[in-house]
Amino acid sequence: MNGRPLRVAQLGCGVVGSAVARLFASSADDLAARVGVPLELAGIAVRRPNRARDVPVDRAMFTADALGLATRDDVDVVVEVVGGIEPARTWLVSAMKAGKSVVTANKELLAADGATLHAAAREAGVDLYFEASVAGGIPLLRPLRESLAGDRVQRVLGIVNGTTNYILSRMDDTGASFTEALEEATALGYAEPDPTADVDGFDAAAKVAILAGIAFHSRVTSADVYREGISDVTAADVASARAMGCTVKLLAIAERSSDGPGVSVRVHPAMIPRSHPLASVREAFNAVFVEADAAGQLMFYGRGAGGRPTASAVLGDVVTVARNRVAGRVGSGESVYEDLPVRPMGETVTRYHVSLDVTDRTGVLARIAEAFAHHDVSIASVRQEGHGDDAALVLVTHEATDAALSATVDDLRTLDVVRAVASVMRVEGEA
Amino acid sequence: MNGRPLRVAQLGCGVVGSAVARLFASSADDLAARVGVPLELAGIAVRRPNRARDVPVDRAMFTADALGLATRDDVDVVVEVVGGIEPARTWLVSAMKAGKSVVTANKELLAADGATLHAAAREAGVDLYFEASVAGGIPLLRPLRESLAGDRVQRVLGIVNGTTNYILSRMDDTGASFTEALEEATALGYAEPDPTADVDGFDAAAKVAILAGIAFHSRVTSADVYREGISDVTAADVASARAMGCTVKLLAIAERSSDGPGVSVRVHPAMIPRSHPLASVREAFNAVFVEADAAGQLMFYGRGAGGRPTASAVLGDVVTVARNRVAGRVGSGESVYEDLPVRPMGETVTRYHVSLDVTDRTGVLARIAEAFAHHDVSIASVRQEGHGDDAALVLVTHEATDAALSATVDDLRTLDVVRAVASVMRVEGEA
Repeated sequence: MNGRPLRVAQLGCGVVGSAVARLFASSADDLAARVGVPLELAGIAVRRPNRARDVPVDRAMFTADALGLATRDDVDVVVEVVGGIEPARTWLVSAMKAGKSVVTANKELLAADGATLHAAAREAGVDLYFEASVAGGIPLLRPLRESLAGDRVQRVLGIVNGTTNYILSRMDDTGASFTEALEEATALGYAEPDPTADVDGFDAAAKVAILAGIAFHSRVTSADVYREGISDVTAADVASARAMGCTVKLLAIAERSSDGPGVSVRVHPAMIPRSHPLASVREAFNAVFVEADAAGQLMFYGRGAGGRPTASAVLGDVVTVARNRVAGRVGSGESVYEDLPVRPMGETVTRYHVSLDVTDRTGVLARIAEAFAHHDVSIASVRQEGHGDDAALVLVTHEATDAALSATVDDLRTLDVVRAVASVMRVEGEA
Repeated sequence: MNGRPLRVAQLGCGVVGSAVARLFASSADDLAARVGVPLELAGIAVRRPNRARDVPVDRAMFTADALGLATRDDVDVVVEVVGGIEPARTWLVSAMKAGKSVVTANKELLAADGATLHAAAREAGVDLYFEASVAGGIPLLRPLRESLAGDRVQRVLGIVNGTTNYILSRMDDTGASFTEALEEATALGYAEPDPTADVDGFDAAAKVAILAGIAFHSRVTSADVYREGISDVTAADVASARAMGCTVKLLAIAERSSDGPGVSVRVHPAMIPRSHPLASVREAFNAVFVEADAAGQLMFYGRGAGGRPTASAVLGDVVTVARNRVAGRVGSGESVYEDLPVRPMGETVTRYHVSLDVTDRTGVLARIAEAFAHHDVSIASVRQEGHGDDAALVLVTHEATDAALSATVDDLRTLDVVRAVASVMRVEGEA
């Protein structure tokens, strides 16, 4: 091993950044052996360089000048673990223009404006890797991009947010309400003080935009993703799911349209059968289920967040781009040749669980069934629960478009036999 | 897209080969878009070129001259789906010497003599990829080799043989004996007419040798792998596992030694807790569970065998080596810098479930406990089952070396209070 060392600049030193710095230091010998030359830390850019930090890095390595560090002549690879769109985008584009390869964990930026980053990498002839941006330590993007490059992906179904999975797992285990389960998650540190990004599905939406782009060789941004969070999921929904052998999960879904070119990309709570491999993904674990024409059903499971798992993914990418540098090559870049349009949510086809509070008298079912039939939504099963003022009807449909279902629900609300539409939830995943 | 097409020679056209030929033909446009130039079939070598085959390939493409095809001037990439050590090794080494990159699904050859293939690839400056050799369509080797390149793998626990997993699943579900479950597997086509390679663990041993080599950056061959099959697993073992909240699986295990440099590589039936993610891998599915320092627990799940899943893995590798050809580069080759020794089975540390038929009288447990203590094997739990002539003691140990456990069992057999050592089975996997 006698090549010139490669020098790595790190932008950011929060929870993930500290874990990256520690893992980089503790695995220096292994990294050198795997790459073929030593990897050296060139510096770490942070807002407050003089603050004491629990990382084995000399104080002199810290700088407040991120842009200067990212474009410095002696830097080969830039690792970005700051997050957010700006100034991260400016720093990374500048770094690539200056000939640096980039490894980033920044899902917001990639999902909002990945095209700008990919274009900068292509123009500069450098690498851009971002395994850590989706599902933390679970190897996912590389398998999708490379291992399945000879196959055709039909559907990606993921549990990619640990906070919401923890909350829904607790609701399922204990019968707790959403509010109670959120309070518990907050107390245990599984939920942020402001849980909006997780609970309302923004985090999952960014991740599924990135997954969809890679799986379908298309450009998908977070703005293209239909999004519903879990704050309206009730204990009654969870109990109703259980009654039909299902559990409720916040699913990130990207699937090829069955009726022409296009892809549906969405995040929403859904009931899935308990026999589905995703149903047993508990608490803060993540998993992504992939259906491909030839490979069939695959699942990738592990810790989707946390400093160390994310650092593992970051350093895996650092080794890849460093090996590429040593070999004088660049990895395969963006693949967007399919360029599929993201179809509106109304055209998405799935199944639905509809729970209605009804008046308990003869002829109610006929009136309700007529409303479904009017919009060509076929009913797979009906179950009556309770009597008198507690009478409820629970219907599960066959596949229908979201638009047809919405129109049906609008009609149901106008029926005098329907006291209230208690809940509407999608049903996903074959058993 | 105006580069010269790349030409692919295929060796073999059995179940996997036919699936590769069909997928190659049906996805030609996608493959071209992903690689950047068209991929063309140069020919298929088979023993009987004139036999009718259900593949969309012109009869003139078939040849009996595998060596000639593999080294032909117009061939860029050689795909080998013949299996077995010779003549496959001669063909592939000759192909690499002639400058062809190689994609192979041949686990026997890689596990028996991977070093020869890797050396040939290195010397010729060509690619050697073999994702399909382990766990069929599940992306596994690329994630281990690349995604986890910044991490340190501690343990790989796999269910990598669908036939034995089907048999053990049936024994667990129905209480069937091994013989009954094997008969059912044979009738359904899940077991070969001669099931030795699967049932006795040879297939799993080859796969875990390949996994261990990659996970631990070392050279491991199938001859290094300790191997026990499942034919001695009884319905009583399965029932006993169930009584302690476990299920029996044939596990392929590679793990770092805790007491110095080395790795334990083995295949044997083991009890694992039902709460372990591997416990719910049913029937012919495969899954590999990986524990890494930073990433934590990961699992890769899918169809481990079958023509189409394996073809998916083969073509994923074909796209990778074709992209490398187009870019004028070679992927990262073998990484064996750790060069860990494979430790003898006697030094392997694990836990044990020991079932003893005993005489039903006072002082039996004291005599038995003394035998364990004599070899420093600590007992975690004891359970008595039955009385009189049916009296049995079921013991589970804390961690101990295989050598200490074997010596203990030898001593137990000499005790007059022990009528028979009914079974000894390892216990793996934290709950």
